[in-house]
Amino acid sequence: MLPNMHYAELKESYLFSAIGEKVRAYAAAHPGQKLFRLGVGDVSLPLCPVVIRAMHDAVAEQGNKRTFHGYLPETGTPFLKEAIRAHYETRGILLETDEIFISSGASNDIGDLSDLFDPSNTALVADPAYPEYADSSMMAGRKVVYLPTRRENGFLPLPDPSVDADLIYLCSPNNPTGAVFDRRTFQSWVDYANAKDAVILFDAAYEIFIDDPAYPRSVYELDGAENCAIEICSLSKTAGFTGTRLGYTVVPKALKRNGMSLNAMWVRNRSTTTNGVSYILQKGGEAAFTPEGRRELRKNISYYKSNARVIMSALDELNVWYCGGVHSPYIWMECPGGMDSWTFFDRLLNEAQVIGTPGAGFGACGEGYFRLSAFGDADETKEAAERMKVFWRKS
Amino acid sequence: MLPNMHYAELKESYLFSAIGEKVRAYAAAHPGQKLFRLGVGDVSLPLCPVVIRAMHDAVAEQGNKRTFHGYLPETGTPFLKEAIRAHYETRGILLETDEIFISSGASNDIGDLSDLFDPSNTALVADPAYPEYADSSMMAGRKVVYLPTRRENGFLPLPDPSVDADLIYLCSPNNPTGAVFDRRTFQSWVDYANAKDAVILFDAAYEIFIDDPAYPRSVYELDGAENCAIEICSLSKTAGFTGTRLGYTVVPKALKRNGMSLNAMWVRNRSTTTNGVSYILQKGGEAAFTPEGRRELRKNISYYKSNARVIMSALDELNVWYCGGVHSPYIWMECPGGMDSWTFFDRLLNEAQVIGTPGAGFGACGEGYFRLSAFGDADETKEAAERMKVFWRKS
Repeated sequence: MLPNMHYAELKESYLFSAIGEKVRAYAAAHPGQKLFRLGVGDVSLPLCPVVIRAMHDAVAEQGNKRTFHGYLPETGTPFLKEAIRAHYETRGILLETDEIFISSGASNDIGDLSDLFDPSNTALVADPAYPEYADSSMMAGRKVVYLPTRRENGFLPLPDPSVDADLIYLCSPNNPTGAVFDRRTFQSWVDYANAKDAVILFDAAYEIFIDDPAYPRSVYELDGAENCAIEICSLSKTAGFTGTRLGYTVVPKALKRNGMSLNAMWVRNRSTTTNGVSYILQKGGEAAFTPEGRRELRKNISYYKSNARVIMSALDELNVWYCGGVHSPYIWMECPGGMDSWTFFDRLLNEAQVIGTPGAGFGACGEGYFRLSAFGDADETKEAAERMKVFWRKS
Repeated sequence: MLPNMHYAELKESYLFSAIGEKVRAYAAAHPGQKLFRLGVGDVSLPLCPVVIRAMHDAVAEQGNKRTFHGYLPETGTPFLKEAIRAHYETRGILLETDEIFISSGASNDIGDLSDLFDPSNTALVADPAYPEYADSSMMAGRKVVYLPTRRENGFLPLPDPSVDADLIYLCSPNNPTGAVFDRRTFQSWVDYANAKDAVILFDAAYEIFIDDPAYPRSVYELDGAENCAIEICSLSKTAGFTGTRLGYTVVPKALKRNGMSLNAMWVRNRSTTTNGVSYILQKGGEAAFTPEGRRELRKNISYYKSNARVIMSALDELNVWYCGGVHSPYIWMECPGGMDSWTFFDRLLNEAQVIGTPGAGFGACGEGYFRLSAFGDADETKEAAERMKVFWRKS
């Protein structure tokens, strides 16, 4: 018996667990001390009333023999797939419902989709990036090539024709940097993937933060993407489902590699290794796509965007370099005085009780940078911004 | 780019999808005709009132900023882990809460756990068996060795010391055959696994149907199991969660292979490729483990057991050979007159409007046998039993 020894190649501790431990240690040593969390990227607003009503109704259905739902289609219920298809259509993207797969969230599918690809493939991951892209590829024994991104190009990854890759992880609006692909840059990635016979795994978890049509919200706004891209979405950040769990993935029928339809493979994977997603959660998700649901969740997004402006205005006042924050809930800032990012994390926690995320946790190019999240409570975000100003002036 | 070509080695269509298609075709050709479903193994009773109340409360919490839950621990919430630990303790099995992992259901974890093992391992799967065991191992490029089981030994798989295996899939009460391990046979599997340095993936989805302490409900009732076994459980059949989705997996801390802790690997897998399971579902699951919850769901199990007796009594009357049905919701019967199992499926559907599951769909040794499920409505099960009697007498 040989276990999957690739796990031994992974770094010991996962970024957010490490942050959690440091915060727990600080809280234990300072009982009663209030902490201002601009860290993990969890949302603070509750689910929209229309979603809550739909889930109450669904729970009630599950308690009644006549309305009870047992096993559901493994790839998702027709009502939620249709709601998502119609939502894409309003944005000018025509999908078929059987190109849409309901999931328990983006992180689940980013991990599970890795199974569709051979371990011999090379994964291309921007540096910095959400840790799961590289980790899940490493778990599968895949070679990971990092694409450095830097302040000079606004932390926007650009394809390099001299680099070969088979599996390309992209995220826009980017986590952690808040960088957003303009149409031309994003198209160059689609063209690169098609030229290399590669597949893009596009993480669109933050698409709702884009207000300007100059920045694509879906990879399928680009020419030829249906031949090379899978899109992974989530209701976590769009509708506050971080603890409620629901997402969806688009695998176009046109997407084929080596004679295999990735759509058919994903159907086979889902129907073999899952029994679908909870009826209750799918009813909640359906409500989020109604006109009333969209109105309610747009209000929440405005609230978070206003938090982002509070943080950006403090950084502007302090003359700190940053990107993101406009079409993104994340602000990616340079640590003051050349401080490394874990030192800045510790100092900000200990001296200002503000929790952010050290850039180094997202990759070597994140060293010296720091991620702040706009998903907090408005009053706490204001207080955190004030505390950061005090901290800077003291430092 | 090379996709995972092992998918091409899988059989084209999945058993339950194939049944679904045949049933849909029949229903379309015979509109209004009532069908009697003793097939897929879905439950028919709604969730228990105590579970429904807990989920309503949890939904309400998610709609209120003060009580809202965002990201939860990836391996499960402490309250549900503790409820499950205490439940095991009442059965004499001492686990630590961090040996318990909350999942979206057994099928999800059976598939995902495959990632912990190297593709070079050989998987041992009983024939017949639930299709996911072999399919998920084949998807990972693993060699699958089938262990024939037959009527002569009541379809109970027995270890064969001359066969080498690394990963052993076991299920008791068995799906599809209803066979149940007695303590001695089950212990011989644990001893075999420890001798071979193998790991048992024990599917305990139907444990609640065991009434007699002579038959272990958990692999951890056997000596040395903590060194070789992972137990995968589900609330689908115990508490009616087939469409609501919730399960749990036990990975003992003592379980190590090649110097790697499988518990630590599974923590790493969950925290990297999931963001945990819905708060709402975990609150529902917690309620199922309260004394009130146990009482309510025991009533449902009695209802299904009474269905099993109705089916068994019809088969006794017809002098048909079968096993299962006593400590199991499944009855595994011999097809009449040497009929092959898909022919019997078609004839029973067309002539008696009764839907069962062809044994051949579970493996070559299932040919000539047929699975009937006791999870249906009581009146429909009685009617189905009567229709089977009429069919037999006509045949």
